[in-house]
Amino acid sequence: MTIMKRVKPAGLFIGKLKYEGDLLGEITEFCIKENIRLGRIEALGSVQKARLGFYNQETREYHFFNFNRPFEITTLVGSVSMKDGSPMVHAHITLADGKGNCFGGHLAAGTIIYACELTIEAFDGPELERGHDEDTGLPLWEMEE
Amino acid sequence: MTIMKRVKPAGLFIGKLKYEGDLLGEITEFCIKENIRLGRIEALGSVQKARLGFYNQETREYHFFNFNRPFEITTLVGSVSMKDGSPMVHAHITLADGKGNCFGGHLAAGTIIYACELTIEAFDGPELERGHDEDTGLPLWEMEE
Amino acid sequence: MTIMKRVKPAGLFIGKLKYEGDLLGEITEFCIKENIRLGRIEALGSVQKARLGFYNQETREYHFFNFNRPFEITTLVGSVSMKDGSPMVHAHITLADGKGNCFGGHLAAGTIIYACELTIEAFDGPELERGHDEDTGLPLWEMEE
Repeated sequence: MTIMKRVKPAGLFIGKLKYEGDLLGEITEFCIKENIRLGRIEALGSVQKARLGFYNQETREYHFFNFNRPFEITTLVGSVSMKDGSPMVHAHITLADGKGNCFGGHLAAGTIIYACELTIEAFDGPELERGHDEDTGLPLWEMEE
Repeated sequence: MTIMKRVKPAGLFIGKLKYEGDLLGEITEFCIKENIRLGRIEALGSVQKARLGFYNQETREYHFFNFNRPFEITTLVGSVSMKDGSPMVHAHITLADGKGNCFGGHLAAGTIIYACELTIEAFDGPELERGHDEDTGLPLWEMEE
Repeated sequence: MTIMKRVKPAGLFIGKLKYEGDLLGEITEFCIKENIRLGRIEALGSVQKARLGFYNQETREYHFFNFNRPFEITTLVGSVSMKDGSPMVHAHITLADGKGNCFGGHLAAGTIIYACELTIEAFDGPELERGHDEDTGLPLWEMEE
C-alpha cells in the first residue's frame, strides 16, 4: 500500500562536510546533534573512496563492495527517520570516475569525504520508525493509513 | 528562451510506495488523489525491474527499453504539472546494479517497485500545461514571459 | 570540520531552460538577474552534448572531457553561492545514453541544452563565499563555526 504523510518544513541547513570524514557518519552525527528526527538530505562533492551496498532481493541480504579510488559525487539523496530510538540516515549515492563512468548504490560507512556540500531539510510531522517489513525483509517505515 | 516562474510551497508529503506497484503509476495516482497540479518529486529505493525511455533527438521519437532485473534507485527526480487537464508526473531515474554500475533514463510505466521512499513538494503558482514544442518535438511547458 | 549553517527559504522558482542554450550559463545568468546569492538547484531534461569535469585529487587539477552526443539528464543537483562577489552555480550532472548507460561529473560550460526543467530554491542566510581550501586545493566555502 502506498502511504504518504503530510509534513511541515522545520529547518533548513546548508554547509560542508569534514575533509577525510566518513560521509554517512558525518551526516548522521549532525542529525543526532541537532535532533533532526525526520527530513531529507541532498549532497554533491567528491570522495576519496567509496563503500556501497546492493540489496539482493532473492537472498534478502545486503552485499557490500568497495571502490578504492576517488570519485565525484554526482548525487546523494536520502532521508532522516528513526531506528531504535535514534535518528538514522538512509542515503543512496551516484559517483563518477575520471572517464565519466557512473557507479552507485546504498551508501555505507567507509565512504571517505574529499569535499562535500550538503543540504538538510528537517520536517515536522508523524515520526517514521523503521521496523522489519515482511514483503522485502528490509527495515522500512512502519506506517498506517 | 529561459523562462522561470516564482511559486510558493503548498504542501509537503513523505512516505513509502506500494510493494510491487508500478513506480510511475503510484506517484501519479497519489498526485491525482491529492490534486497536486504543480510540484517536484524525489525518491530513492529499489525496483524489481525497470522500463526506461530515451528520446532520440534526430527521429524525435522515444525509444523504450526494459531491464528485467533488480536495481537500487540511486535517484529519482521529477516534476508534477498538467497535461490534457490532469496532473502528469515527469521523472528521470538513475539505477545501480549488484556491481554498482549505473543505468538511467526517462521513467516509463512498467518499472516495478521493490521498496521506495518518496518526497513530494506541492507548489502554488501559475499552472504549467504541457503542449507540443516546435524546437524539440517534446510536450514541454507552454510558458510566456 | 563539518560546518552547517541554518538558513531560511527565500524564494522558489520553476521553469524551463532555453533550447540550445548553455546549461551552466543559463542557470548562472538567471541567478545573477534575480540576485540569488545562496540556494539550491535541481534539474532534469536532456542535452545535445556535454562537457564534464573530474577533479584529480593527486594533481589537484580539473580534467575536462567532452561527450559529443545527446543524453537524458537523469539528475542535476547544485548550489548557488558567491565567488569573487558574484553568484556562482556549482552543479554535478548525471546523464544516460540510448542504451541507458550513465555518465557524469562536474558540469562545465559547453553542455548544450535540448530541453530542461529547473527548480531553484533561494535561501536567506549567511553568505557562503568560495576561497582556496588548503586540504583539497578546491574553491570551497569559507565557513567558521
